[in-house]
Amino acid sequence: MPRSKITVEYDGTNLLGWQRQLDGPSVQEHLENALLAFTGHHSEICAAGRTDAGVHALGQVAHFDTYKTWDLYRLKEAFNAHLRTENAPVVVISAEETTPDFHARFSAVGRGYIYRILNRPSPSIILQNRVWWVPYSLNIEAMRQGAKHLLGHHDFSSFRASACQAKSPLKTLDKLDIERQNDEIIFTVEARSFLHHQVRNMVGTLKMLGNGYLKPQDIITILEKKDRKAAGVTAPACGLYLNKVMY
Amino acid sequence: MPRSKITVEYDGTNLLGWQRQLDGPSVQEHLENALLAFTGHHSEICAAGRTDAGVHALGQVAHFDTYKTWDLYRLKEAFNAHLRTENAPVVVISAEETTPDFHARFSAVGRGYIYRILNRPSPSIILQNRVWWVPYSLNIEAMRQGAKHLLGHHDFSSFRASACQAKSPLKTLDKLDIERQNDEIIFTVEARSFLHHQVRNMVGTLKMLGNGYLKPQDIITILEKKDRKAAGVTAPACGLYLNKVMY
Repeated sequence: MPRSKITVEYDGTNLLGWQRQLDGPSVQEHLENALLAFTGHHSEICAAGRTDAGVHALGQVAHFDTYKTWDLYRLKEAFNAHLRTENAPVVVISAEETTPDFHARFSAVGRGYIYRILNRPSPSIILQNRVWWVPYSLNIEAMRQGAKHLLGHHDFSSFRASACQAKSPLKTLDKLDIERQNDEIIFTVEARSFLHHQVRNMVGTLKMLGNGYLKPQDIITILEKKDRKAAGVTAPACGLYLNKVMY
Repeated sequence: MPRSKITVEYDGTNLLGWQRQLDGPSVQEHLENALLAFTGHHSEICAAGRTDAGVHALGQVAHFDTYKTWDLYRLKEAFNAHLRTENAPVVVISAEETTPDFHARFSAVGRGYIYRILNRPSPSIILQNRVWWVPYSLNIEAMRQGAKHLLGHHDFSSFRASACQAKSPLKTLDKLDIERQNDEIIFTVEARSFLHHQVRNMVGTLKMLGNGYLKPQDIITILEKKDRKAAGVTAPACGLYLNKVMY
């Protein structure tokens, strides 16, 4: 059976996340329904990362098998036509043919996330559900100093959700850049893989450096404690974007 | 009566524009309703620019009079509390006290707009109603060459909507910059004032330079013809933002 790889963008605001759920819409359900509608067959669509409810994607990657080989332009257009009809907040950015041994999740060698904080006194309506609004001024330099301690190979237990199913809390963080762009503070984060809520827990903790509640060197102690209670709050889902998946 | 000046952001997607209308919601109606709710008096709120249906604002400016002097932080918070309750896509960014001779429209000495084109093969769901999606590649250099001919003092009749109520079609365009930012092409436009639809008509015409349908020097002929039919299409409202008003 031919295997296809698609790159997908979605607005997670009104979705329960990537994974199919019984009690509400998910990205997987929208895509599998579209695929069923134009191929006549149900195929499971497997993603690189199972994003949570409210989290967005600019470049989620997924794979699936079909009975016949599809023209890739028509495949993309068929997906998008069905997604539009369903008013699904999901769009297929590109479609490629791939090999039967390609697996969106297990073949991935890296994942890149972006986290957006809107840092100004007033909320934004244009960026509603697109950013985490923090009204008081954050010290970027303090956040950058703290972020350095998170880079590299660590036990990230302090930044791990209790529901996390990963076998090991050991991860290698390759990138954690923090940039100001007008009123926004943008975190760019890359690793081979992440623990559940790891990015949101890191951002929520670094924000506490930004407002002076924690000091940069506190990050070292937090890592050493290997206890979720030692770190800061979980940043809200609406600011998080799965930006890209590397193979 | 004390006069206040407010700076307002709005998502124009589901609004009929700034001005109060009988057949649907407007920015003016949302703001005047909020003001009535917390002051108990109706005051007309007058804006620097009466944006059209679907057009957004990041920094619209408006003024109004109240019977008593309000604490400015409380004024802003009272507006935003009422706007949230009404689920209005409008937010007050700042409030200032001003002098009785200040007029949001007539005291303005400049207006700045931004126009956003998303220039990539696939549509975006994250930027839906925030940009004009143009799927084929646009040549920015050709658009910049054409834009140069629009700068300065001209008769802009070819870029003027038939419904325009301005006394004269003569305007001075101070800035028309075109920059690529990732998948977007951003137009930054400034003038003392604009004709009705002038920015959208300029962007729609420059886009035709970007895809080679017109040549940069055609802009000179289009200006000389002083005829709306000589220029290109009106770019859609969803890509336009009133960015700032200068006093």
